[in-house]
Amino acid sequence: MKPLILVTNDDGVHAPGLVALVKAMSEIGDAYVVAPDRERSAVSHALTLHRPLKAEELREHVYSVNGTPTDCVALAVHKILPRKPDLVASGINKGANLGDDVTYSGTVSAAMEGTILGVPSFAISLAGDHPFIYDSAVPFAIEVARYILNKQLPYDTLLNVNVPNLPKETLKGIRITKQGKRMYDNAIQDIYSPWGEKHYWIGGGKPYWEHGEDLDMQSVMDGYVSVTPVHLDMTNYSALEVLRKEWKNTKD
Amino acid sequence: MKPLILVTNDDGVHAPGLVALVKAMSEIGDAYVVAPDRERSAVSHALTLHRPLKAEELREHVYSVNGTPTDCVALAVHKILPRKPDLVASGINKGANLGDDVTYSGTVSAAMEGTILGVPSFAISLAGDHPFIYDSAVPFAIEVARYILNKQLPYDTLLNVNVPNLPKETLKGIRITKQGKRMYDNAIQDIYSPWGEKHYWIGGGKPYWEHGEDLDMQSVMDGYVSVTPVHLDMTNYSALEVLRKEWKNTKD
Repeated sequence: MKPLILVTNDDGVHAPGLVALVKAMSEIGDAYVVAPDRERSAVSHALTLHRPLKAEELREHVYSVNGTPTDCVALAVHKILPRKPDLVASGINKGANLGDDVTYSGTVSAAMEGTILGVPSFAISLAGDHPFIYDSAVPFAIEVARYILNKQLPYDTLLNVNVPNLPKETLKGIRITKQGKRMYDNAIQDIYSPWGEKHYWIGGGKPYWEHGEDLDMQSVMDGYVSVTPVHLDMTNYSALEVLRKEWKNTKD
Repeated sequence: MKPLILVTNDDGVHAPGLVALVKAMSEIGDAYVVAPDRERSAVSHALTLHRPLKAEELREHVYSVNGTPTDCVALAVHKILPRKPDLVASGINKGANLGDDVTYSGTVSAAMEGTILGVPSFAISLAGDHPFIYDSAVPFAIEVARYILNKQLPYDTLLNVNVPNLPKETLKGIRITKQGKRMYDNAIQDIYSPWGEKHYWIGGGKPYWEHGEDLDMQSVMDGYVSVTPVHLDMTNYSALEVLRKEWKNTKD
């Protein structure tokens, strides 16, 4: 039986990155799309709890949902797909998801939801700006998907893949990386409404990042595809003992 | 100089849990409130990038923002507060934030944003249902805040605090815990619009959770306050070597 692959994203069901990923996943399995009806970037791991959601079948195996990427994965796995999928593929995002962006990213959060529901999952993004060369990411999407289907993933862990937005032939291969730190400077602009009221607009600002060959951002800067194993268990284990000692934990 | 403490939440600027937390933080520092204008539960670490945000000064040191908890922290630190705060306190949430809920939680995401911006941060939630006994959480909010201000936190780490929703005198103390796993069964209901169209509504379902004395959920069940050190670096370090070996990493 061919693997059943759920394809989703946060740029919306009509995004060219999704089309490219569906094409890629169709080479190795039956691809179903359940994706947001419109762009839902930076919605993070939001779940819609305050209203009902509608899934519209646009054509065979392609559904549009008026919700977040996380909603899409939950609906797909519980309600829409003919069986539990073998893989969740999220992307191809137009823009990087590196460093702390992982905690904001709708693309990565879809893969988180897949992982929580017990389905091996990856997120894939093109690191760079317009124009996006989705074809460059396609062979790596296939390589990562094949790896996951053959080898399985560590418990509670997804793969976060970032492909430099460069011509395919210039990419140097894959590096397994750690999540780096990214900082934004002056990332909020003041703007005024036509009636003179002060508002703020988040965005812009110059990002700084941690350097180091095995870090996600550095790898992309070096022309490598970055593959980071992202663990949903966010416990800082090394901090546990320190805190326990210092806090004089009450025990029974 | 008294510590400057930013208080926020995801239940909105008028929530009783926020009022209780402000009262608590005012005992140890200057508390400023920058919080969403309405409930923003399960918005996770969403940032509003597609429109301007407005901060309304409701009264001295209290601001309402038409955005997410993450927006509030970013605006507070960059634009609203007189200086960089010494602490971000998020809550008191009406309802638990345990296990994988951490990745969905607006309450925890505010503490994540604080941490990303270099401010020691904690999230505090009441684990249980209506009626919520905010007074039970107050002494623990103070204890945790004092600990953080005196000892500092490990790098890139916040504290996620869950207080059992029980009378103060029955609480057994603090346990330093790991993030556990939580699973929901049948967590999506089918419902129909008045015109007969099928919709889905996420919620309900019976949660299952991992057991173990040092896990967050178990501690709350046992009547202890759970304090989990949550690390923003989500890299699965133990998976790095495995992946590198198996993938035959391309190196330069």
